[in-house]
Amino acid sequence: MLAAVTRRNRIAVVQKPVPRLRPGWALVRIRLAGICNTDIEILRGYHNFDGTLGHEFVGEVASVASAKDRAWIGRRVVGEINLACAGLGFRKPCSYCRRGIPTHCARRRVLGILGHDGAFAEYLALPIVNLHRVPAGIPDEAAVFTEPLAAACEILEQVNIRAHREAAVIGDGKLAQLIARVLRAARLRVVMIGKHTSKLRLAHLADIQTERVSSPRAHRSNQFSLTVEATGSPLGLALAQHITVPRGTVVLKSTFHGAANVETWPIVVKELTVIGSRCGPFPRALALLRSGRVDPRPLISRVFSLKDAAKALPYAQQPGVMKVLLRPARAGSQKSYREV
Amino acid sequence: MLAAVTRRNRIAVVQKPVPRLRPGWALVRIRLAGICNTDIEILRGYHNFDGTLGHEFVGEVASVASAKDRAWIGRRVVGEINLACAGLGFRKPCSYCRRGIPTHCARRRVLGILGHDGAFAEYLALPIVNLHRVPAGIPDEAAVFTEPLAAACEILEQVNIRAHREAAVIGDGKLAQLIARVLRAARLRVVMIGKHTSKLRLAHLADIQTERVSSPRAHRSNQFSLTVEATGSPLGLALAQHITVPRGTVVLKSTFHGAANVETWPIVVKELTVIGSRCGPFPRALALLRSGRVDPRPLISRVFSLKDAAKALPYAQQPGVMKVLLRPARAGSQKSYREV
Repeated sequence: MLAAVTRRNRIAVVQKPVPRLRPGWALVRIRLAGICNTDIEILRGYHNFDGTLGHEFVGEVASVASAKDRAWIGRRVVGEINLACAGLGFRKPCSYCRRGIPTHCARRRVLGILGHDGAFAEYLALPIVNLHRVPAGIPDEAAVFTEPLAAACEILEQVNIRAHREAAVIGDGKLAQLIARVLRAARLRVVMIGKHTSKLRLAHLADIQTERVSSPRAHRSNQFSLTVEATGSPLGLALAQHITVPRGTVVLKSTFHGAANVETWPIVVKELTVIGSRCGPFPRALALLRSGRVDPRPLISRVFSLKDAAKALPYAQQPGVMKVLLRPARAGSQKSYREV
Repeated sequence: MLAAVTRRNRIAVVQKPVPRLRPGWALVRIRLAGICNTDIEILRGYHNFDGTLGHEFVGEVASVASAKDRAWIGRRVVGEINLACAGLGFRKPCSYCRRGIPTHCARRRVLGILGHDGAFAEYLALPIVNLHRVPAGIPDEAAVFTEPLAAACEILEQVNIRAHREAAVIGDGKLAQLIARVLRAARLRVVMIGKHTSKLRLAHLADIQTERVSSPRAHRSNQFSLTVEATGSPLGLALAQHITVPRGTVVLKSTFHGAANVETWPIVVKELTVIGSRCGPFPRALALLRSGRVDPRPLISRVFSLKDAAKALPYAQQPGVMKVLLRPARAGSQKSYREV
């Protein structure tokens, strides 16, 4: 099969064998995959990952390893990216899996990021426990956003959202856009603070207020009880601390690597709560997509054929470009899956 | 009266008029005052404070401005350091005072720190609403710790302490020692991670486990569900992130100034909750002192006469020195207050 692999921070589209299945796993034929900033960071050397890139996808189950899972064959699915104890076949779960947080599994591998081949390929393999069926009403072009949308929904799991009337989202990139839409769907007034006119315009069309970012001091202090930092850069934290009210909540979504020069005393003096937020609940994201309360499709900049992945990844890094998708040739746009 | 004042980052003991009272205020005769790291930071230029230093004290009410407060005269008291809307005489409270968090009052002045003369003097003035009577069983040498002990108790207000069995306290200084004692009194197993043998020994005598600090990587990762960073240095945060379990809680107590080189991605990847923590509840601190469950007196290194404040502050900065107290000459050790 065709796969876009990274080796020593370079990307190449190569022929590889279709992945092997372990008991309880499924082989998923990729219909559409999405390029995330994490993929670009991997190409810059983060995680030292060598293998097939990609962790955002929608596909259909082509085969399963265990007879009991046969009902999955032909279903359209999206998949959680953390392979935890249960999926990896460990009989004795680690302390995190025991506590019901497999996203923090001590043994975890991560699709297309850590120790497990990803979605920029014709096929991938995942444990059935990682899969979620995609309801009929959601087109592939929306379903492919399930993973990052779930990450945005994680904020609703971590914060008592009803305690807030408004929120600031710092950043105007792909994840920031999804976060702002999720918070707006939760009926908050949302202000996106970003630097790109075209990206802020996209947010404006989704009923999100927008503001051009400036130096922290140029923004009015103590405005928001909830601020989400999703710039992908270390500079967002200082602004977040500045615009958040005392005893307010700052959610961190940026996973840029390397140290940054940060002042932490405002966290103490203002008694802020800073919450790190990573992967989130797929069912919640699918429900938002199905209801139509969040439509991520305006964020798509371009769809490339999988064979052109080596062009698509640099394209995704260009200024002003939002979500770039990859489509394996054989997936086509025809409906080959069974509706749920 | 005698007062230790700072002007352009220098300390001098001078004669000044006794402070004037506003309606609802009390004049407090200082019996004993404590030197805090914040006092030392002020001398280094933090806050640009010019005036009488000091915010930790025990004293007795010498006079009051309003006849209705006459019952306070002669009472032994400690005092909250934030002067908020009510105490400053504003009829219309700010949004924080309205929400019941006067420690974040938008108009606040802070005793010996911001816009209000402090406790390194024979007398200070505070609103009666800031005062708490000291129960009879608590000696001055313990009562003088009420303010920092309340700051340590703030953690019990912010964290559901029953969700934790153990906690790490990073740092072995004065505040770290009080925090460790408060958490121990809350029946947690407490491990203090510090660098000074003599200070760790003090903790050991209070039934606190101790560990010598090393580089973060040299400590076992993911050990503690609750970690308190109280080193007073930016380096504690990296160690806190490392030893705290995924989804764990890190409480920040250090208010060192200036930016530090900090990696924030572990907060995101481990989905940590980082809580800034500042001033705390005096009644809780007084209850701990009265019950004897926390005895801070072993932390006293030396008592200076107020007139020697210019020697006491440099002494407090010497390695191995813990709490240094100042006693105005006339306060003596005789009992001149009325027992409650």
